[in-house]
Formats: sequence, structure tokens, C-alpha cells
Amino acid sequence: MRMDASPDEIDGVVSRVESHGLKANPIAGAQRTAVGITGNIGVVEPGLFESLPGVLEVIQVSHPYKLVSREFRAENTTFEIGGVEIGGRDLLVVAGPCSVESFEQTLRIAELIKSSGGHLLRGGAFKPRTSPYSFQGLGVEGLKILARVREATGLPVVTEALDIDVLDDVAEYADIVQIGARNMQNYTLLRRAGQCGRPVLLKRGMNATVTELMLAAEYILDQGNEHVILCERGIRTFTDHTRNTLDVAAIPAVKRISHLPIIADPSHAAGQRDKVIPLARASVAVGADGLMVEVHDKPDEALSDGNQALLPDQFIELMEEIRLLASVLNRQVPSQASRQQP
Amino acid sequence: MRMDASPDEIDGVVSRVESHGLKANPIAGAQRTAVGITGNIGVVEPGLFESLPGVLEVIQVSHPYKLVSREFRAENTTFEIGGVEIGGRDLLVVAGPCSVESFEQTLRIAELIKSSGGHLLRGGAFKPRTSPYSFQGLGVEGLKILARVREATGLPVVTEALDIDVLDDVAEYADIVQIGARNMQNYTLLRRAGQCGRPVLLKRGMNATVTELMLAAEYILDQGNEHVILCERGIRTFTDHTRNTLDVAAIPAVKRISHLPIIADPSHAAGQRDKVIPLARASVAVGADGLMVEVHDKPDEALSDGNQALLPDQFIELMEEIRLLASVLNRQVPSQASRQQP
Amino acid sequence: MRMDASPDEIDGVVSRVESHGLKANPIAGAQRTAVGITGNIGVVEPGLFESLPGVLEVIQVSHPYKLVSREFRAENTTFEIGGVEIGGRDLLVVAGPCSVESFEQTLRIAELIKSSGGHLLRGGAFKPRTSPYSFQGLGVEGLKILARVREATGLPVVTEALDIDVLDDVAEYADIVQIGARNMQNYTLLRRAGQCGRPVLLKRGMNATVTELMLAAEYILDQGNEHVILCERGIRTFTDHTRNTLDVAAIPAVKRISHLPIIADPSHAAGQRDKVIPLARASVAVGADGLMVEVHDKPDEALSDGNQALLPDQFIELMEEIRLLASVLNRQVPSQASRQQP
Amino acid sequence: MRMDASPDEIDGVVSRVESHGLKANPIAGAQRTAVGITGNIGVVEPGLFESLPGVLEVIQVSHPYKLVSREFRAENTTFEIGGVEIGGRDLLVVAGPCSVESFEQTLRIAELIKSSGGHLLRGGAFKPRTSPYSFQGLGVEGLKILARVREATGLPVVTEALDIDVLDDVAEYADIVQIGARNMQNYTLLRRAGQCGRPVLLKRGMNATVTELMLAAEYILDQGNEHVILCERGIRTFTDHTRNTLDVAAIPAVKRISHLPIIADPSHAAGQRDKVIPLARASVAVGADGLMVEVHDKPDEALSDGNQALLPDQFIELMEEIRLLASVLNRQVPSQASRQQP
Repeated sequence: MRMDASPDEIDGVVSRVESHGLKANPIAGAQRTAVGITGNIGVVEPGLFESLPGVLEVIQVSHPYKLVSREFRAENTTFEIGGVEIGGRDLLVVAGPCSVESFEQTLRIAELIKSSGGHLLRGGAFKPRTSPYSFQGLGVEGLKILARVREATGLPVVTEALDIDVLDDVAEYADIVQIGARNMQNYTLLRRAGQCGRPVLLKRGMNATVTELMLAAEYILDQGNEHVILCERGIRTFTDHTRNTLDVAAIPAVKRISHLPIIADPSHAAGQRDKVIPLARASVAVGADGLMVEVHDKPDEALSDGNQALLPDQFIELMEEIRLLASVLNRQVPSQASRQQP
Repeated sequence: MRMDASPDEIDGVVSRVESHGLKANPIAGAQRTAVGITGNIGVVEPGLFESLPGVLEVIQVSHPYKLVSREFRAENTTFEIGGVEIGGRDLLVVAGPCSVESFEQTLRIAELIKSSGGHLLRGGAFKPRTSPYSFQGLGVEGLKILARVREATGLPVVTEALDIDVLDDVAEYADIVQIGARNMQNYTLLRRAGQCGRPVLLKRGMNATVTELMLAAEYILDQGNEHVILCERGIRTFTDHTRNTLDVAAIPAVKRISHLPIIADPSHAAGQRDKVIPLARASVAVGADGLMVEVHDKPDEALSDGNQALLPDQFIELMEEIRLLASVLNRQVPSQASRQQP
Repeated sequence: MRMDASPDEIDGVVSRVESHGLKANPIAGAQRTAVGITGNIGVVEPGLFESLPGVLEVIQVSHPYKLVSREFRAENTTFEIGGVEIGGRDLLVVAGPCSVESFEQTLRIAELIKSSGGHLLRGGAFKPRTSPYSFQGLGVEGLKILARVREATGLPVVTEALDIDVLDDVAEYADIVQIGARNMQNYTLLRRAGQCGRPVLLKRGMNATVTELMLAAEYILDQGNEHVILCERGIRTFTDHTRNTLDVAAIPAVKRISHLPIIADPSHAAGQRDKVIPLARASVAVGADGLMVEVHDKPDEALSDGNQALLPDQFIELMEEIRLLASVLNRQVPSQASRQQP
Repeated sequence: MRMDASPDEIDGVVSRVESHGLKANPIAGAQRTAVGITGNIGVVEPGLFESLPGVLEVIQVSHPYKLVSREFRAENTTFEIGGVEIGGRDLLVVAGPCSVESFEQTLRIAELIKSSGGHLLRGGAFKPRTSPYSFQGLGVEGLKILARVREATGLPVVTEALDIDVLDDVAEYADIVQIGARNMQNYTLLRRAGQCGRPVLLKRGMNATVTELMLAAEYILDQGNEHVILCERGIRTFTDHTRNTLDVAAIPAVKRISHLPIIADPSHAAGQRDKVIPLARASVAVGADGLMVEVHDKPDEALSDGNQALLPDQFIELMEEIRLLASVLNRQVPSQASRQQP
């Protein structure tokens, strides 16, 4: 309440609160009175009270998500994927080209990833592009290429479902359905992803708060799909030395409030090849459950984002570095052998 | 190029440029050499060159949009809507509740808007909500209410198409199809909106640059739909005194580079009723072609965003204030009379 | 408190609160208990409680400023300056070159400002420059030029005190001491400005919240100087179409919580001449008590920021536009005549 | 140039460029002509050309700093401090309380730091505080306490020089002079720090770009002081899960363009104790040359920022973790023994 709120104004707020079936708890302070509201299950709309006379501010003290929170489920959610127990001690490495360009290109890169110890193949068949004149991806043809490459290499596949039109196709061909950063608040797509029968890799929007990321995941869990992997991929800030600012602190922040696994995508954050490995190391060190990186053997010919793709030698170097890091962080990067059994 | 780039490295860049059918123009400076690239029609992927030895940076100097630009079309795009020539001297006023809640509520508010001189009715039937537990809108039922209220009042209707599933329904019932801020980079939806046969109101994403807004509109125009109205509704920044920061400078910035009309939505930027009128005045003064504001006669009972909705008296005050402003800005707010004739 | 906080943990928080001489008010909710803290005069350090077992979060509900707030003083602070009653109905226009370059340049521009109806002359003698190699201002020589130009034209002078070393000189020669955006949190300078015997023009830092601006002003008022004019000059965001984002909403936000006058500087926000007039109109329309703009008659030869300076014809146009706006906003731009009397 | 720029307009730009003693290089493209400007040593003011007819945009392609850049000096700057060769393989650990509160408190914490393997003692004697009513530090008394604690423990001392008034005192008592984030663009202070005869620890401003950080350091090097340590401490963004967003990518970005060492301050970025260790690990993994962290043995009684200070056990854990990380990153944390010899 305002400092000069009258007793009548305070009573007015109390009545309004009670008229909504909630409980009002006035607390008289040295300078002003506050009215605590309790009895609500979900979020209370601030608009119900903000315009009453004498009210200074309405402050939320509860968080609006449930299923994703550690208060709802204390232990980490874990599930097996590509021979990796995501959410446990294992570190997951997802790698591949930005776009699927051809069977040969995808196979070559997938073989490199497999031989270097990566666990999943990524590659865009449907590409969200800022300009209508940029390459938009091979579409269903790209999905089929990914499936053939999986057959050839054994690497499970993750690829983006750009919209609800293609979600079923993606869920048919891919092992994990990716929701891109630009679609993090595409609620229809989130709900459908919650019904698609596949694990979902949900990327944080580049202007989303951690609370909004939690709520986006809540849409998926609310449809009965608990197999969600979150992904920090950088936020938009005023800086210009990277394309986006990798918000590594979001990873322990998510870990504290949620039981869901979270990985990092240093490639999109960096936007430039030379910063990908340092950011990958930082992500593992801060506690990420894995990495998603772009790799290309001929980045100069890549149809999209070639300048952020690691070269083959760099990917091998990355795998070595994160194995070393894992060894001192009480984590591990599962090897091919352990992945053969399933 | 880097200061220490060798002649061979410069030649390497020139060869790469030429191998892509483009022309390389080396410019030797006092400290370093730059290589200008010309001959391209669209955007050149920086990745084609960024990784070559000796290259310091790839800097874009052309803009990647065409159809929306004033270089493509010098005169303002104008078209008639609700008796207003949007893009010309007229100021358009779109108003209504955040959500369509019932026929009675919507009719009451629409009559107020009409009698106060507003031109279009807004109201959400499909609501994008951060939380899956918030009210999600009445859906097609809401569209039918909007159509009935249009019949009763004569006010054309604008409402949001939340996804491609509902776009056809929205285009059937509404006069203008709105693409919301969270969907500004939902490219599938943009393309479909370009084919829907209705004018499109495209809201700027809360983390979108003006260039990205231009490119989003380009997706719509590229499908043959030239009737696009842009809308500035605030960007996400570090501040906390409003929900978003209304970027009024985006309005003259858009006017300079594009022929498309642009309006402002001060309600979503403010997030609080008491700042809506000042921001509406600022928007008109900076050169917006109109306003979109939320109005509710019982905001305390509103199912969404009640605290940012203007009260009826405030809406009347707003209309008076912008009429006065229009009179000194060489603009006008068309009255009922002038709108009756069509 | 956390949902699973034990009664002992709640008691622990209550004891800690009471051990600091404050009052603890536990409020039991449906899902969790909150503990309201009252009895404090200033701000409570969150660290005192955040680390106690069972504590989820410490949320501030009081604001940390006093002297600047409307709760402390309900009526606007007003005082006369250059024939203008700042903080009342009058609109103040401060104009001049970015830097004082010579007596002749300053005089020419000052005469233009005076004849067009501007009230105060601005001009930098000490320039804060990002690069050590840029022009740093004429120093005390510049102050003397400003004083001579004031003598010749009658226009009072505002100029920046870059540091405490030059504050006394600035206070001796200038009528208003400016604290620049980069110095908004230079607390030593703020305190000295509070003791300097001159009104202070305090610019908002480009990453400062409104609360931080309030607290910066509080430093000045706390030293007994009540003559503070605040200035919104744009904040740093991710956008690139202006140098900074003019946060016009900060103006009504400040007006609501503080009794101090606030003006706008559209020149520094825009960074480009063609957006200064639209932003100036927006600032007046949103409720600013005045404007500060850069004007130069030979901007191509300006030693700093020439591209954002209005040309003489543009300044005349600006004055005409804001006189018209003032006429419909219940405000006025005092003319020369009214300023002659004192 | 604009697409529709006339030959005369292009000639006009060429003439203007040449009139400033520079060389103009017109490059005709498919759609427009660009004019490259060469022959400049420093930065060209865009305002010189931006307003000429036909000009669309002025784009900088050179960077405005010299002494700090790797183009000027290819090898890392290294120097010895507290037994650590900063800028080389060694990792520097600076630790201590936010504020110096008493000799006993400072000594206790310093002994903990020393016995755990930290290298330098930090502690504020002059505190920059947002509110005039917060604890402002013990001043010179605090400096004397730091000096006594150094005598007792052998740990060199770093502390902030809040303004030019206290710089000499700080330089007298401290081993390294810190320039705080709020003062990163306090140019007078930077210059004096360049003359103070002590190494300088320069913190990045919370809204500073990497280029601006480079230029701030340039001010210090330009005065002949090459012993500058940069410090990333988080930037201000829209997020709310940490106080500031630790921009770990700034560290490899600085390393690429500058020869100066750079450390990270995870305490101020986090704002909460539980995220300090993860962010410290990320900083070391990304390539920082060291860490600065806050430690307090009685954080609940701390006079400032107690909730971000590590507890003694946590500091010991941090030292163990970074020793392990160093072992796999080809770096080392020098031990007491190696530091005894000087």
C-alpha cells in the first residue's frame, strides 16, 4: 500500500481479495502497510488489485510453474538417449551440420562425429531464416537423409520441427524433436510436442527469462511428456563481440529450480568458430548436462552459418577437452563401447 | 583484412570471391587493406569468407530486404480500413479488450469505442499466454462474437491468428489478421498470412531489430500481400518501470527505410494503465500512423491484462488528446461521419 | 520460505529478524509461509536472511529513496531558470553545440538559439570521450567562452563538470552544472554537486534504472541542494537504428514517483540528426518539462558528434513544432519578452 | 551511398573526403556504389559524411584502439604479482571481503585465503553504493587495515580507488589499484591511474562493450602504465536469475584482440552465493587468467553484499576445484611455496 493509504483503502483491498476466495493478511509496518495474499493455487492476476485506491504495487512471491519444479519433484529427471543417461553423470554431445545439405555431406560429418565420440547427430531439415531469400532447408527430403544416415552410423538424430505442419514428419523420422529458440513461445507447437511421443529438445528463446523457459517446458510436461531437455543458446544483449551472450549462469539457475536436464549450444551463441571451444568448456564447467555444436567439414561451402561450424580437427579437439574436463568434474563422456549395448 | 595480412592472403580472398561469381575490389589503406564485394543481389553469407587466412571481419553494407524498402517503392503504401486511409494523413485508432470474454462485454466496449470515435475493434479470441494455466481465449467462439459485434456496431475487427491451424478461421471472421509479437519470426505463419487475402497487422517482436521487422514483413509481401501494417509494442530491456520499453524511435526509423504504415501499441509496452495515455501521445507525436490500445469497462474482472486496459473515461480522454495533437501535427482522426460513406 | 521449510526454519528467520531490532510477521499460505519484515527505516540488506535454512527468496517491497519521492513531498519542485519556471507549465529549451569550439562558433549558435526562442545555452568545455585520441574539449578556456557568450546574449549557461577537479570552475562560470550519463553513479561527484550552490542537471546513465536515477538524485538532495533537473537521454539496448533507445516512459514514471522536474535529450539518444525532431516531439508529448538538443551551424566541421546536431533551420522548425504541441498540451514555451523581466 | 545516389552526389562525397586529407575509393556495385575511406590514422568522425546528399550510412571498419591491441603487440603482457605470473600459465586468485569492516575481520579472512592458497587480498575501503544511506566504507582507515593485514600475512592487497581524491592514498597503501565498473568511463580517474605507479585492475562497466573496455584500458596505457589487468564482472541484461549476466565470451574475445591479461569476478555477476562456484569454474574453463571472489566468514553480519560472499568452506572447495581444472587446462595455480621466494 502507499504510505498515505487510509484504513478504508486497506479495507477495500482486503474485501477485494476475499471476494476472490483468497485470504488477505494485512501487515502494518513502520511506514506503510502491506497486504499478503494467500490461498491461491496458481498465479493471482495483479490487475485484480493494482488499480484499487491506495495500492502502490502488486509483487508476486510465488512462481507460476509446477511440473518442472524441484519442489514438485526433487530428483533429477534422467532418461537414456544415444547411450547417454541424460540428467545423470553423463555428458551428452550432439553435433552435426547447421543444415542437412545432401546425403553425402551428412554421412561424412556423422561418421566424423561418431568416430570422435559424439552421441547424437543434429542437422536442420527445416530452417528458420530471418530472410525469405535465404536457404530454407531440404524439408522432408532432409528428414529422410537424416534417417538414412542414422541407419548407416547408428547415431540417433535430433532435428527441428519448425511448425505444427511438419511436427508429425519430424517425430516420425527423428529420435528427438527440437523446438527452436524463435519458437520457444509458440504455444501450439509446444502442446503438440508434448503429445508427439518423442523426447523434446527445447531451446531457450533469445529474450526469454528462466521463468519463461520453465513455463514453456511446463506446456510440454502438461501434455504428459516428461522427456524434455532444455538448451541454453545465448541471449540478445547490447554486446557485439558474439552473436548472442551465452548466459552460462542460467544452467545452475535451472538446476536449482528444476529437475530437467539442460545442455548448452555454444555455436549459436558464439556465431564465430574461434569462440565455440572456449564456450563449450565454460558450459561443461558450469554444470551443463551436455553440448550441442555445429560441425562441418567444408564450412566455406555450407549453405547456412558456416562460420560458426567447427572444423573436423576442432571437433576432435573439443571431444578431448571435454573428456579431460569431465574427468575432474565427476562426470563422464560415455564412449562408443558403452553405447553399443542397446 | 588483418593489418598483417600477406599479399597471398589478400589474393586468396579475391579468388574465393570470384569463385562465387562476385567481384572483388581490394582497397589498400594506410594500415590495412579492405576487400569490397559487389555483384551480389541478395545477402552474401559471411561464412564464405570469414575463415580465410588474413581475414579480420566480414561487414555487411547492403540490407537484405527489398519489397518493403523505400528504395523499392518511394511513396507510402496507403489503403483504406475502417474509414481511415492508413499510411496517409489519417490516424487510425484500434481499441478493445485484451480478450473477448462474452458477447455482452465485447458489445459494450465496442459501442464505447465507436461512440468515442475509434475505428477498429480489437479483441483476442486466441491468446498467447506464458503459462499453460492462464486463460487461453474463447477460440472460434470468440471469433463469432467479434463478427456479431461488428454486425451490431459497424466496427471492423482485428484479432490475432495464433498459429497456422486457426489462420483460416481468423481470416474468415476478421477484417485484419494480427500476427503477435511472439510470432514475428514464425515464418510459416508469416507466409500463410501473406496468402490469406486480408490485411495483416504485424507486431514487432520484443527482441527484434528494425531490420528483422523489415524481413518479417518481407515474408508477407513476398507472397503477394502488400497490405501490411507494422506495430511497435515495446522491446525487452533491463528497465523495470514499464513491462517493455516503447521504442518510439523505431517509428521514424521504419518510415525512413520503408513505405509501410506503422502504428504503436502503448498498452502492452506500459503494462500499467497510468502510462498508456502519455505513451499514446508520444507515439502520435513521433509520427505513428495510429494506435492500438486496450480498453475495458470492468478491468478488475478482466480475464487477462486488466491492469493495462484504459477505463472508458480514459479512452474518451485519449481520443480528445490525440485529436488535439493531430490538429497541430498536420494529421487527422477521421470521424464517424466520414466513415459512414463507404 | 521454501514450500518444505520446517517450523524450526521459520522460527530461525523470525529470530534473526528480531535480533536486528525489526519485527517479523509470518503469513501462512496454502503452499508456503512468507515472513514480512517491518520496522526498518532504510533498506534491509537481503544478505542478512537469504542464506538462512528454508529461505527461498528475499523480496524488497519498500523503495530506498526518500527526499526525491512524492511520498516525501507531494507537489512538484519548481524553480526559475532562464525565465522559465521549470517543473511547472513552462517548457524549457536548452540548446547549443556539443563542444565549445571557439568564441565565434559559440556566439553564432547562441544568437540563433536566442532569436529562435531557446532559453539556455549548452556546450561542452570538458568532454567525456570513449577514446583518449578524440577531442577532449577546450577546458577552462571553454568555460570562459561560455561566460562571455552569456554576457553577450543573456542566455544562462549549462555545461558538464566532468570530474571533481573541475567542478568548482564549472560552478563558477556556469549557471547550471551538468552531471553526464557516464558519471551518474560517480558518487563523489554527486555529493560535491550537492554542495556547489548551483542547480544540477543530472543525466540518466545509459544502463541505469529509474530507481538508480532516483538514488543518484538523492545523493545531491541529501547535501541540501534541491534544485535538481533530471534528464532522460536514452538507454543502451540491443537495437541499432538509434545510438541509444530513448525511454520516453521513464518520464511519466519519474513524474509519478518524484517531485523533481525531468527533461529529455533526444540528440544523444538519436545519434542522427533526422530522428532528433520526432524524438523531441515525443518527449514533449509524453510530459517532459523541457528539451536539451544539440545545434550546430556547421555540423560537418564540428569537432564532436556533428551528425546529431540540428541545423539552424531545423532548430527553428523544432521550436515551432513544440510551441504548437505546447498549445494543445496545456503547457507553454516562454518567449523572450517574459524572460526579460528578471 | 543510396541506390539512387547521383554521380554528382558521389563526387560530393569524394571531394569531402579529400578535403580532409584522406583518400576516397569509390567501388561501383550491382545496385549501389560504396566509397571506401583510407589514409586515416585514428577514427574518422562519421558526422563528416553522414549528412551529405546521397549518403545512406557510414560504417567503421577500423578499430579505434592501438596500444592495447595484439596488432600493436603480439605476445601476451605478463608481469609478476603475488607470486603469480599474470598473463602466463598461472591462474591468479584474488579474494576477500566485500568491505573492510575491522582489522580482526580482515585478518581472519586473509589468513583463510592464504592458507587455502589464494594470492591476493581484496577488500573495499571506499565503497561505491547506489544509495547514500548505505555503508560507504571505512575510508583511509580501511586502507591502513589492509596494509597491516598485508604485513601480517604477506598477501598483497588490491582495493578500489573510488575517485581521484583518494587515488594517491590507495596507490600508497595498496599493491594494485582497482577501478570499479561504475568508473570504467571516468576518464580523469583512468588517466591518473595511468600515472599512479601501480598495476591497475580495471573492471568492465556493466553496459560496456568490449571495444569500450579496450578504449578505457587505452587511457591507462597511453599514460605509460602497461600493467593493466582487465576484469569481466557481468553485464546488465533483461534476465533476473542473477544480478548481472557473466559474459564469459568476453574473455576469449579480449584475448583475441588484446595482449592484456583478463580475470573474472563471478561474485558480483552472481549476486548469490550458490552460483559463484559454477561461474568461477566457467571462467577458468573459458580461459580467464584468474578470479576475484568475495569471501566472508560471517556473511550474515557483513556490512555489504553478504549474500554473494563464499563461506570459508566454499572458498576451500573453490580452490580445490580450480586446481583440478587447471591441471587439465594446461594452467596452474601457484602454491604458497613458489610465492615465498620473492
